Amino acid sequence: MAVAAERGALVDAVLERFFSLAKKRAAPLGAPYEHLWGLLERNTQGGKRFRPRMVMAAYAGLGGDDMDAAACVGASFELLHTALIVHDDVIDRDFVRRGIPNISGTYRDHAVDRGASVDIAEHRGVSAAVIAGDLALFNAYRLIDRSGVIGPVRERLIDILDEAMFASAAGELIDVDFSISRETPRVDDVLTMERLKTAVYSFETPLQAGAVLAGAGEATVATLGEFGREIGIAYQIVDDVLGVFGEEEATGKTTIGDLREGKRTVMIAYACSTPAWSRLCELIGDPELTGEQAIEARLLLVECGAKAFAEKTARAYAERAIAHLGEPHIPDELRAELHPVAETVLNRVR
Amino acid sequence: MAVAAERGALVDAVLERFFSLAKKRAAPLGAPYEHLWGLLERNTQGGKRFRPRMVMAAYAGLGGDDMDAAACVGASFELLHTALIVHDDVIDRDFVRRGIPNISGTYRDHAVDRGASVDIAEHRGVSAAVIAGDLALFNAYRLIDRSGVIGPVRERLIDILDEAMFASAAGELIDVDFSISRETPRVDDVLTMERLKTAVYSFETPLQAGAVLAGAGEATVATLGEFGREIGIAYQIVDDVLGVFGEEEATGKTTIGDLREGKRTVMIAYACSTPAWSRLCELIGDPELTGEQAIEARLLLVECGAKAFAEKTARAYAERAIAHLGEPHIPDELRAELHPVAETVLNRVR
Repeated sequence: MAVAAERGALVDAVLERFFSLAKKRAAPLGAPYEHLWGLLERNTQGGKRFRPRMVMAAYAGLGGDDMDAAACVGASFELLHTALIVHDDVIDRDFVRRGIPNISGTYRDHAVDRGASVDIAEHRGVSAAVIAGDLALFNAYRLIDRSGVIGPVRERLIDILDEAMFASAAGELIDVDFSISRETPRVDDVLTMERLKTAVYSFETPLQAGAVLAGAGEATVATLGEFGREIGIAYQIVDDVLGVFGEEEATGKTTIGDLREGKRTVMIAYACSTPAWSRLCELIGDPELTGEQAIEARLLLVECGAKAFAEKTARAYAERAIAHLGEPHIPDELRAELHPVAETVLNRVR
Repeated sequence: MAVAAERGALVDAVLERFFSLAKKRAAPLGAPYEHLWGLLERNTQGGKRFRPRMVMAAYAGLGGDDMDAAACVGASFELLHTALIVHDDVIDRDFVRRGIPNISGTYRDHAVDRGASVDIAEHRGVSAAVIAGDLALFNAYRLIDRSGVIGPVRERLIDILDEAMFASAAGELIDVDFSISRETPRVDDVLTMERLKTAVYSFETPLQAGAVLAGAGEATVATLGEFGREIGIAYQIVDDVLGVFGEEEATGKTTIGDLREGKRTVMIAYACSTPAWSRLCELIGDPELTGEQAIEARLLLVECGAKAFAEKTARAYAERAIAHLGEPHIPDELRAELHPVAETVLNRVR
């Protein structure tokens, strides 16, 4: 825990320096631009620094001792994460994230306060979010470029970041297609989407980046990729279960949003092949779903076995991930770093 | 002309290789993703390769002889340009560019053909365009990174590309604010917006990148930046004049679109301080503006002196640009490369 806080502080410091410079540079180009940078900075704060933690866990577990460089690489993944969620909100037309106005929402509210119509205000909000996401995306590269890492290691890190972005874009596109298709996707298609959209950039590539930075051999980098992929998919399945069945205080998310949105999850894909579907499909995706109807939907998801199926699938992925840690070329220190990550995921479905 | 075609072909070859690899890599992640890459490629084709031409003109004029490297750097600016216009269309909710469906429009039309409602189809179109623009933006860096240029020159090129993106985002934000503000901006504010949104990434930084790649000294790089800034602003002012008064066949744009949109240009900013404004402001920005009303608006813009003012301003910028070419550290070959660029702009307002 003390270690996690220390690492988090290093990442915070990198991002603080980066944004401080960017805001200074933006100021002569106009107060609104400086303000946009400040808002983007706020959007990188308060998170769990999940991706940097993966980078640093792999790095430290493989004997890396330049934690400042690892923090730069971690911050780069954090910025990529920010870019992806800011543009994800543009795509989903969301103005709020975890109960707080996001970039679009902040700009929209500000424009409404100044007397703009809701339509114009929302347009301004979305426009600002498109621009802010572009800035975060473009600068994800820059943070690696300025990390002081040079030569083939730098090139390899950029390749890995590229892979993260390439996969996320593919996942986002599949997700968009899910959301407008009238058909419910199959379980396998949901798993592919979640791997591409989230697991690759949140687990697989950050772990590989940490390993490459530590000078690890190809076998270790490959195994970390496989571990990250499996545990990332497990994490996402659990996240979807908690999005419907979790404690709102613990997750910070409502448990009705995903049901109202009709989010395509492993549970839903499973439920669709059971007799419960004839009723469930009337409830899921109804933006006006009431609290009572949500209770009914949850009950159906339990009764038809969808919840248990999702939990079982998540456990299977997490256990396969843990098995990778047992491979002989994984040093004990790395195992000690990553076992808790897998355990945390498993504990959420126990 | 033969030289321009030869250089254009080198840039085309770089982009073709890049997209061919990207599509091959995308195919295993799903046919829709491969298709999106193909659409993005189509969006980089058929243009005037304006920014690559600036890179290569500066490079060749300063004695550079590795035209393949210059083509890579040029292609990188072309990809940045694609990213910016794709996201600009997202911001402006445009589904058509120069009479042809853009990425959003192509996806929208496809979804409508498959029976989706217009609302859902437009949403899918905009979502695909957000993702496609992200891919282009992220890969603008990559093209420089893979150009084979290394060391301090590579770093400097990345800094220049960063400057291009940083300025464009600021300009786009100012433009968004113009479009929702009830007040008409001042001439100076329009000039600042056009410099940031277009001149920096289209003229100033591509010329500087070509110079840096050729190993030019700081004074030359600085002068090229100033030349690019002045000629870029001149170009944009002329472009706005032609957007209202041009020949549609020559520009490929309607001459009513900017009037209907109420685009904030130097002409409009000037007209707003003249007596013609009381009538003009009723016409400008009316999405239902008729052909006859457009003729009336054009007449008013001529009579109040706004057209002449814009042309005079453009000439002054172009002449200042040309004066920079006379500085003693600018070699004759470079002057020979860039003089035609400035002349082309001047000829459009003669």
